[in-house]
Amino acid sequence: MSIVIVGSIAMDTIKTPFAKKDHILGGAAVYSSISASFFAKPYVVGVIGEDFPDEHIRLLHSKGVNTAGVKKEKGKTFHWEGEYEYDMNSRRTIVTELNVFGNFDPVIPEQYKKMPYLFLANIQPDLQLKVLNSMENLKFSLCDTMNYWIEHDKDRLVEVFKKVDAVVLNDSEVREFTGATNLATAAKKIKKLGPKYVIIKRGEHGASIMGDDMYFVLGTYPVENVVDPTGAGDSFAGAFIGYIARTGNTKESTLKKALAYANVVASFSVEDFGIDRLNKLTKKEIEGRINEIKQMINF
Amino acid sequence: MSIVIVGSIAMDTIKTPFAKKDHILGGAAVYSSISASFFAKPYVVGVIGEDFPDEHIRLLHSKGVNTAGVKKEKGKTFHWEGEYEYDMNSRRTIVTELNVFGNFDPVIPEQYKKMPYLFLANIQPDLQLKVLNSMENLKFSLCDTMNYWIEHDKDRLVEVFKKVDAVVLNDSEVREFTGATNLATAAKKIKKLGPKYVIIKRGEHGASIMGDDMYFVLGTYPVENVVDPTGAGDSFAGAFIGYIARTGNTKESTLKKALAYANVVASFSVEDFGIDRLNKLTKKEIEGRINEIKQMINF
Repeated sequence: MSIVIVGSIAMDTIKTPFAKKDHILGGAAVYSSISASFFAKPYVVGVIGEDFPDEHIRLLHSKGVNTAGVKKEKGKTFHWEGEYEYDMNSRRTIVTELNVFGNFDPVIPEQYKKMPYLFLANIQPDLQLKVLNSMENLKFSLCDTMNYWIEHDKDRLVEVFKKVDAVVLNDSEVREFTGATNLATAAKKIKKLGPKYVIIKRGEHGASIMGDDMYFVLGTYPVENVVDPTGAGDSFAGAFIGYIARTGNTKESTLKKALAYANVVASFSVEDFGIDRLNKLTKKEIEGRINEIKQMINF
Repeated sequence: MSIVIVGSIAMDTIKTPFAKKDHILGGAAVYSSISASFFAKPYVVGVIGEDFPDEHIRLLHSKGVNTAGVKKEKGKTFHWEGEYEYDMNSRRTIVTELNVFGNFDPVIPEQYKKMPYLFLANIQPDLQLKVLNSMENLKFSLCDTMNYWIEHDKDRLVEVFKKVDAVVLNDSEVREFTGATNLATAAKKIKKLGPKYVIIKRGEHGASIMGDDMYFVLGTYPVENVVDPTGAGDSFAGAFIGYIARTGNTKESTLKKALAYANVVASFSVEDFGIDRLNKLTKKEIEGRINEIKQMINF
């Protein structure tokens, strides 16, 4: 099935205590579309600058990602530079150069408009609303956001939450948005705004999904060597909606499995810099880790 | 099977935004022994003052708890007073009156010394070592501690960790003890000191156990109405060692189930003030919630 993915395409510079990688392929739409590609066909809407290497586009194509919705504009590609501490839990943004992404105005190509699945990665809520209004035949939509929009554009963000089927946020965003420290309480508060499902990324504690009559919490797969956490959340979201698109339903059992696949793909994503691990990842490896988790949580 | 439990016996005053309870039965040895009693026979070592009501001793006896190791001393029983905020995640200690507990010197009765299971609740590390040296036939020992001993008596605490089979700590204690923010990393550091198993209580994120070739994380049972979180950690520890004592082994499958039972008993413990919910709790209710969790985590 087809998933429209709208979000950033970036050139990231990533520094960890062990290495530094300069201007490598990144961005929420990139991580999420490659992650979704293991399950369904992603169609990306985004913007790149004149400096964006063709090889990156070829890489996306090699993963089955459709880039008809990616516009090349005059100027440079969005550039983010960040640094991680030894424990990989905290990161510091050193540089954010929006460049062409600063004027991003997502235009959904005609052939994307009737597609049934949508992932709105973190962009300005107004743009998310514009995309939602462009889609004509949605079956399931998922949106992400970031602390900046919670702080500066909460009213519009609430409008987005009202219109989507599911929101995916990390624990600190959920707490900031609701003012509740308990995550189950916070999830309920967000669900009341409209979305059927609230998915919380809990960092090292895994992830949870709350629906009308379901609440499922799943721990992370224990990764031995975290090399670069960048994009883990977007990989998670991409795999989540990818799995739902593949099965074509939102039964409780599907949603639980989608959360497990999301955890697993994110666990691979952090094992190398940028999208390097995702690029080499196979369906067999994904299934292997799913089985390990099943074994692990079984008691 | 028989479990020796050494720790505080208290009269607690607990204030929440909804109610206040004065001088009710509490203390780590009380919560843990009642919780262990659903699985095995607890033998308590502790100290009480002259003000300690006989009805509390009768209550413990009604649960099958042996109190031959509980000494009555001149003076008042240990008194703790605490207050919870609305979200029940944070609490404030208002009063700590050690009273007879300030001179607590645990003496293991002869008939307890050959018992195979031991839970050392939070007391001074030197006293924990003394108890460990008194036990002659231990098969499995578990110890708890608190931030105060990590800050003021870490060397002796390390000696305790070297001698026990398992330690149970909460997430902030583990981070404080090791200086590591990632809990898997922190658990490994503690394991290197000696204990075969490191159990981490993660608050609303559940609990985990790490052994040589195992790492199991389990989310909390979603309690709708938390009335009083006091004693949740001790209930957890008591049920954990209780289940191990009942099965008589430390196979991986046993340890995983022990963690599940620990989670479940703790989830009941917080549903009413003090030990009120544990007092009414039935084995059938425990099994019911275990089955619910199995259903919940299955995907």
